[in-house]
Amino acid sequence: MHSRTRSTFAPPVMAASRWLDGVTFPPERPLINVCQAAPVDPPPEPLRQAMAEAALHNDAAHLYGPDLGLSELRAELAARWQSAYGGEIGARQVAITSGCNQAFAASIMALTNEGDEVILPSPWYFNHRMWLDMCGLGTVVLPTGADMLPDPDQAAALITPRTKAIAIVSPNNPAGVEYPAPLLRALFDLCRERGIKLILDETYRDFHAAPDAPHDLFADPDWSDTLIQLYSFSKAYRLTGHRVGAVTAAESHLAEIEKFIDSVTICPSQIGQIAALWGLRNLDQWLAGERAEILDRRAAITDGLPQIAAKGWELLGLGAYFAYFRHPFDMPSDQLAPWLVREHGVLLLPSTMFRADDDPRGARELRVAFANLDRAGIGRLYDRLAGIPG
Amino acid sequence: MHSRTRSTFAPPVMAASRWLDGVTFPPERPLINVCQAAPVDPPPEPLRQAMAEAALHNDAAHLYGPDLGLSELRAELAARWQSAYGGEIGARQVAITSGCNQAFAASIMALTNEGDEVILPSPWYFNHRMWLDMCGLGTVVLPTGADMLPDPDQAAALITPRTKAIAIVSPNNPAGVEYPAPLLRALFDLCRERGIKLILDETYRDFHAAPDAPHDLFADPDWSDTLIQLYSFSKAYRLTGHRVGAVTAAESHLAEIEKFIDSVTICPSQIGQIAALWGLRNLDQWLAGERAEILDRRAAITDGLPQIAAKGWELLGLGAYFAYFRHPFDMPSDQLAPWLVREHGVLLLPSTMFRADDDPRGARELRVAFANLDRAGIGRLYDRLAGIPG
Repeated sequence: MHSRTRSTFAPPVMAASRWLDGVTFPPERPLINVCQAAPVDPPPEPLRQAMAEAALHNDAAHLYGPDLGLSELRAELAARWQSAYGGEIGARQVAITSGCNQAFAASIMALTNEGDEVILPSPWYFNHRMWLDMCGLGTVVLPTGADMLPDPDQAAALITPRTKAIAIVSPNNPAGVEYPAPLLRALFDLCRERGIKLILDETYRDFHAAPDAPHDLFADPDWSDTLIQLYSFSKAYRLTGHRVGAVTAAESHLAEIEKFIDSVTICPSQIGQIAALWGLRNLDQWLAGERAEILDRRAAITDGLPQIAAKGWELLGLGAYFAYFRHPFDMPSDQLAPWLVREHGVLLLPSTMFRADDDPRGARELRVAFANLDRAGIGRLYDRLAGIPG
Repeated sequence: MHSRTRSTFAPPVMAASRWLDGVTFPPERPLINVCQAAPVDPPPEPLRQAMAEAALHNDAAHLYGPDLGLSELRAELAARWQSAYGGEIGARQVAITSGCNQAFAASIMALTNEGDEVILPSPWYFNHRMWLDMCGLGTVVLPTGADMLPDPDQAAALITPRTKAIAIVSPNNPAGVEYPAPLLRALFDLCRERGIKLILDETYRDFHAAPDAPHDLFADPDWSDTLIQLYSFSKAYRLTGHRVGAVTAAESHLAEIEKFIDSVTICPSQIGQIAALWGLRNLDQWLAGERAEILDRRAAITDGLPQIAAKGWELLGLGAYFAYFRHPFDMPSDQLAPWLVREHGVLLLPSTMFRADDDPRGARELRVAFANLDRAGIGRLYDRLAGIPG
């Protein structure tokens, strides 16, 4: 029987986790897990205390909240974006969602109808591709170059009357690359000119290498006619288990996604929202430290690179949580990845999970979510990879 | 521009809450809010402590969990259903969702494709109707009789090759009625015979008047070829703000909804799941008391009925959280409801929110979510309604 869900593939991270079934890792060679883009440590102690406090003493924490999120949190995030990006961003242009995936899913439902098209640069974030499949939409593949970045002129050539949006992730998942501000501006201008939306997923923005705003799109007084920006609190404050994301867009867009949210989850987790608000108000300095640490780990990826480059590995993209490699083996990546678990105790994702079945680059590439490895851990990862017989 | 979300209406509860804007309620006549089917009190203290404890000391509470929920919770709920309903229900046939709406939304996406049909008894739960609209599905209206129950023969006559499911809610939202076991069996047999699914939303099961199992469907050794049962932890343990529901169905169905969950929310809130598990293990006696209280309030609806029956009100359905009335006024219900807020301080929902635009019964009926009113409160509600000039 055909159905919406049958038109797409199984969740990659769940599939990858099954590669661990029945595999044991000797104490001298523990598993190195660079599979999922998620913090493995819990949130800082004071944030946990704030959540415990809410659970005990804030009755509202247990009751339904507004579909589009707590108004204090919407206002606080709007103010944050305004100070970070410049421009005018009102609290009513921000909605809180049950994670950033929901912000994408709801936005797509608000923009499209059966048979419409959305342009995705390849490699893509797999949940974006899955959702487009499930919504009966065409995914129009926008290739990326050697720098893992798309070309606006190529994007322009792909737009048809059925195209409703270009959806991008910067810093990118899976390729790590940070889209330069002029590229983001060119894509925004293209979308505006053609009357479609630019969906910009900034889940990893807090770990961008640039100290200043990564783009000037919000400074455009009419940004909301074209831009739909997505965000996640999961990475910044280590709240993956609480499902809190956000979308910043035109009020009219939020009125549409409210229907989706109402029908799918009613409202975001209240404790998660309370935690996100507490984080925005109290964790700037802590987050700056987190960012510095991740940037140092990123530097460690570069510093140690010669060790595996000598074995034929090539670093194609680097940034945020991710290093994206071309591997030197004959084995295609979707066989290589489970083999690496069994034989070398390394869990990472093959690029077949991020590319179309008929894209030959998928077989050659791997994503390493390095953010949970410190410098020593990255050294051990490189030792393992370099030790694989060629 | 047409889009998925534009094919449906705005969330009724959010719309109704806007009727309160600018309205003040004098101290001697405070608002009586019987609009939303949600507890207004927080969970019991020991459950709140369990959540605070998890926030402080359980690192996993803050991290992603499995898409289909915590395995302990899945196992505990399977055991609960097995003891409550009889039959064989395995932990792998239970998935945890971000609220019961998500269980419905994901199930629909797993069963249907563009242009398929789902049969809904009218009046329906509005989020079901909204989701079918957004999924590009036809809602086939199954009328209910004077007893607010559908007729299986009428349902049979509505099934076409495009029909994929009959979706029902028992005890019913909005009409309150408990579907008798033989009716549920007849609908189940019909669905099996015609090769479609019976989606049975049992969100309000814990407040059913019958002390024993409300149906024997799970006792069928092959129940999972036809039945998809939905549940919510929101009402039982007062966890509306935490978004925890469940779906019990064939493993193959859960493998499909896993794709939806992965792409929309990744996993349910961990703290919510920990709370639900704690509730299942510790709150049986407390929940029995809650049920007794709600059944007493239900009795109060019946006991006081003559007072408003004398004014022309007719009780059409009663059960779980809801009393469903035919009102005696010329004003259509969608004008009457906001007028009742302004003039009499009563917030309830008009049946236009639960019926098709062209169904004349919508204008005549109102839903009262009485569960948050004690006997005295129900008396005050009846005083207000009886005091409306005819």
